Amino acid sequence: MSYFRVAIHIVPRRGLLDPQGKAVSDALHALGFSGVRDARIGRFIVLEMEASDAMDADASVRQMCERLLANPVTEDFEIEGVHVIEGAHVT
Amino acid sequence: MSYFRVAIHIVPRRGLLDPQGKAVSDALHALGFSGVRDARIGRFIVLEMEASDAMDADASVRQMCERLLANPVTEDFEIEGVHVIEGAHVT
Repeated sequence: MSYFRVAIHIVPRRGLLDPQGKAVSDALHALGFSGVRDARIGRFIVLEMEASDAMDADASVRQMCERLLANPVTEDFEIEGVHVIEGAHVT
Repeated sequence: MSYFRVAIHIVPRRGLLDPQGKAVSDALHALGFSGVRDARIGRFIVLEMEASDAMDADASVRQMCERLLANPVTEDFEIEGVHVIEGAHVT
């Protein structure tokens, strides 16, 4: 088994209303950042996990997103990167 | 003026307790994902904005993070990328 760090983006699906993004966009305008046209707010999740290899880590994380981390109706997820954590081999 | 898409990661500062991450980690264990050792939950923000150039966009977003988007006591931010949106030049 090796030790991996996996970064995940979870974002509101395009075309759906993102009320949190609208609130942030309005607040930025109120602070004087008038160039902002759109803001979308998602989650950024970093997992540290054991897996036999990077493909296994990727497949596990995909299942985690489908079963818990992302809302399949309103959100899309993207696995941004699977990196081995050096020097952290576990048995 | 050009039109830019800027992606931002905002993460709980290393060493601080991340209760949301702890809850997600526990829930993943309960679902049978026993390999997970740590989960940290941050925000992923995508802004679309006008700016004169990429450096100006980056500087504006840095200010937005300091003034509104990130909590300077508990969070770190990282500007992940500043990309021109092609074909969207504005005057």
